Amino acid sequence: MTNKTHREQFYLDDIQVGQKFGSDSHTLDEAQIKAFAAQFDPQPFHLDAEAASGWHTASITMRLLVTSGAPMAGGVIGAGCEISWPIPTRPGDTLSVESEIQKIAASRSRPERGIVTILSKTHNQRGEVVQLMTAKLVVFRRPVVGISSK
Amino acid sequence: MTNKTHREQFYLDDIQVGQKFGSDSHTLDEAQIKAFAAQFDPQPFHLDAEAASGWHTASITMRLLVTSGAPMAGGVIGAGCEISWPIPTRPGDTLSVESEIQKIAASRSRPERGIVTILSKTHNQRGEVVQLMTAKLVVFRRPVVGISSK
Repeated sequence: MTNKTHREQFYLDDIQVGQKFGSDSHTLDEAQIKAFAAQFDPQPFHLDAEAASGWHTASITMRLLVTSGAPMAGGVIGAGCEISWPIPTRPGDTLSVESEIQKIAASRSRPERGIVTILSKTHNQRGEVVQLMTAKLVVFRRPVVGISSK
Repeated sequence: MTNKTHREQFYLDDIQVGQKFGSDSHTLDEAQIKAFAAQFDPQPFHLDAEAASGWHTASITMRLLVTSGAPMAGGVIGAGCEISWPIPTRPGDTLSVESEIQKIAASRSRPERGIVTILSKTHNQRGEVVQLMTAKLVVFRRPVVGISSK
């Protein structure tokens, strides 16, 4: 498991299929669930904090990836993803994300970048998976130092 | 195009493949983009409101679906989806969603519900597609009135 330090960032050259990344954790309370629901998913079962909106789980997952779990140089830039929510996120749940590199494809037209397929599992404190996400990320090659393109 | 009135709600019995639903619209300003980014996607290009987080676009799309665009009885209950962002959402963009029913599958184990595949395109004010989402929704059959199950 690779854990990011505050300075370490990964280029395409640094990652390989099977590599895993852990994240920090985030605890959701009723107030957070209600606030997100009121703004973005105002359905009774979210507004009364019975369960968080799936989009809230997705947004917290993104925060965890950006701040700790997917330390890609240049940022976590998603081209698209598949996402599912096997069980709901509930008030009091503490979420963390484990990601694994599944595929690395070089770009033919843009040699300075590649498309990395990464599976991210968002767990609650009981180890249950509340979200599965398979995302395609744009990841950059390490810049060549000292050689100008002109 | 089917537009929801405030009272009209659709059961599985009411929908068919090819049916379309329109939504209300929502305009994003810089302050909204920065606030979402600070909470959920704190990357420089979102924090400075150059472009909205894809999860912000997804969350606004959900709000538009819930409040106007996908008037399913019992709520908009997603089991999972595929999502992509062909172009960024920018400050000042006015988003609206057009959805089309693509597939309807009855549940064998749960005869009171079905799984509906729905494609939702989120457009900006120039008609450009900023998000494509193909979602599987749980949709309920109309309850049978006057017949008790006991």
